[in-house]
Amino acid sequence: MKIVKVNLKERSYSIIINFDNYARLGKEIRKLNIGEDAFIVTDKNVMKIVGEKIISSLKKEKLSFHIETIPPTERSKSIKVWINLVEKLAKFDKKRKVFLVALGGGVVGDIAGFLASVYKRGIPYIQIPTTLLAQVDSAIGGKTAIDLSFGKNLLGTFYQPRLVYTDISVLETLPIREIRNGLAEVIKYGAIKDKYLFNYLEKNEFNPRKYDWQYIVSKCSKIKAKIVEKDEYDKKEIRMILNFGHTIGHGIETASEYSKKYSHGEAISLGMLCAVELGILLKITPKEVLKRLEDLIIKIGLPQKIKSLDIKDIMKAIGYDKKFHGRTTRMVFLKDIGSAFIAEGIPWNLITKVIKKRLE
Amino acid sequence: MKIVKVNLKERSYSIIINFDNYARLGKEIRKLNIGEDAFIVTDKNVMKIVGEKIISSLKKEKLSFHIETIPPTERSKSIKVWINLVEKLAKFDKKRKVFLVALGGGVVGDIAGFLASVYKRGIPYIQIPTTLLAQVDSAIGGKTAIDLSFGKNLLGTFYQPRLVYTDISVLETLPIREIRNGLAEVIKYGAIKDKYLFNYLEKNEFNPRKYDWQYIVSKCSKIKAKIVEKDEYDKKEIRMILNFGHTIGHGIETASEYSKKYSHGEAISLGMLCAVELGILLKITPKEVLKRLEDLIIKIGLPQKIKSLDIKDIMKAIGYDKKFHGRTTRMVFLKDIGSAFIAEGIPWNLITKVIKKRLE
Repeated sequence: MKIVKVNLKERSYSIIINFDNYARLGKEIRKLNIGEDAFIVTDKNVMKIVGEKIISSLKKEKLSFHIETIPPTERSKSIKVWINLVEKLAKFDKKRKVFLVALGGGVVGDIAGFLASVYKRGIPYIQIPTTLLAQVDSAIGGKTAIDLSFGKNLLGTFYQPRLVYTDISVLETLPIREIRNGLAEVIKYGAIKDKYLFNYLEKNEFNPRKYDWQYIVSKCSKIKAKIVEKDEYDKKEIRMILNFGHTIGHGIETASEYSKKYSHGEAISLGMLCAVELGILLKITPKEVLKRLEDLIIKIGLPQKIKSLDIKDIMKAIGYDKKFHGRTTRMVFLKDIGSAFIAEGIPWNLITKVIKKRLE
Repeated sequence: MKIVKVNLKERSYSIIINFDNYARLGKEIRKLNIGEDAFIVTDKNVMKIVGEKIISSLKKEKLSFHIETIPPTERSKSIKVWINLVEKLAKFDKKRKVFLVALGGGVVGDIAGFLASVYKRGIPYIQIPTTLLAQVDSAIGGKTAIDLSFGKNLLGTFYQPRLVYTDISVLETLPIREIRNGLAEVIKYGAIKDKYLFNYLEKNEFNPRKYDWQYIVSKCSKIKAKIVEKDEYDKKEIRMILNFGHTIGHGIETASEYSKKYSHGEAISLGMLCAVELGILLKITPKEVLKRLEDLIIKIGLPQKIKSLDIKDIMKAIGYDKKFHGRTTRMVFLKDIGSAFIAEGIPWNLITKVIKKRLE
């Protein structure tokens, strides 16, 4: 077991990284003293895999619970699904003291976190991330959100969980595409902050069964925790380095209609490649970084070419991206593997150029 | 002009109390540097009275703006109305830097504040309260909310405005029932924290044209500011004293179907009377406090008898009130005029008794 602390004064919490230890969950909840009645938001795939273990752990501690499953897709991050959860929560909340459990991937974490943050002006919640992406990224740091038809994550809050309970044994049950999806964010952490992590992925063959997940997940958790501690509300241009690959990546993701063609991780690996090429054009990034990143992405099986998307759609999606403050285009670049840098006023024509180069 | 500071570290702001000075609003917004594009939430009654002055003030400062009016009723604090605002805001937000203006009473302030707090994880907003109730209470302190069919204020946040811009000249345009509505909260401030304010209302005849509104509004603003500074998130049993009269009052308000029979202030004055009688039964409150409070409420023309409501409906509404943590009934009592006190474990039968006594 590894414990990573996220130090945010009265909002501090632990990330507990375990192997096959869902049975201890009830005890951990009791230690936190956050309530008696667990409102669990999850999806049916996750329920099948870990539901029973979690339920029996809650029962052992005499915690009451109610389970709400949402469809396992990005489309679930909608106002409609969210309002349904609000109503279910209000109906369930008639007893003692209610708290929320986000059991699943990024979608579940985002929508449940948002619910916890605004229900009765905030109730406690815990994150139990069950995808690699959620374990290394979205479950940590308190960003919650739902989507509008106008854009992703348009409604949301900064609201820290009281615990992130990560069990890496669940990674064994994930389809390979989901592992790749999360590895894109792992590559990102290496690229912006930790050359050793990047080296680890370079040196080892792509084999999820042989990966040292304890090392990977705790390393990423630590990096994210440190960044969030310095810039909880994303206001100091510190947290922004986590957006490496995300500006163009989000554009690709949006243009491909929310994960139909490209998953988040796939879009982000394309976005990272574009950002590195842009960095080379702007003389920020050394040329060899591109080859290393491209080789790694190829080895892991993430895409390097943008297929069947229209440049106009991608650019439009980038233009609406909230990462662009007003009209200036601010983006994250690499000075080297393990070292990130924010630059402003990037010319739109160069952005178009590097994306076009990746189009197939 | 009076300025009351609300000191909350990086979330500090001013309450500017003016007379006939909406023309300066644009300049104040410029000083705050909160954005270029004002999304104004208001209602059509308020628009008629102050709309033109405010618009021309914004125009003078070359601030762009969009006006959304909502129906001037508590029913507007619904998810449906709120989602419509979200969509309108997202459509308007395509230009430079958007901020929100809550121009109106408590309903407008609550719904617009909630919108500002979750749109893009929080954008700046200012409060321009145009009712007495909003000026002395709801515009200050950052509580935002909308209602669900299950209960009032079930979705909301703590999210401080960047400015409260109070113009007391607008009070002249209010119907007398609205003035009384606000005065109930003024009485509350006197009762819990300031015997001089209470004395002021006792000594002077009820005449809104002769009242020293500058004194009344700034006094209440200061009291609220001090309490909010000590307990921003309503967690330390300090802010809770503002709930004097509100536990039973909310029950009455809810039972009368959201302000159909009783306005918030009317329900709260009934709630205060019940709380004082309960305090006497519990030997917390001296008997003479009841006479003083009752005399003042009669003089101002607020109700002292609960008409055509069912005790069962009131009790049910109180049972769901979130002021009751779990199953213990915690309430605010007066030790004297100007001195409040929180007591726990109030027997339900005594609560029923004092309410029944007020029923007509």
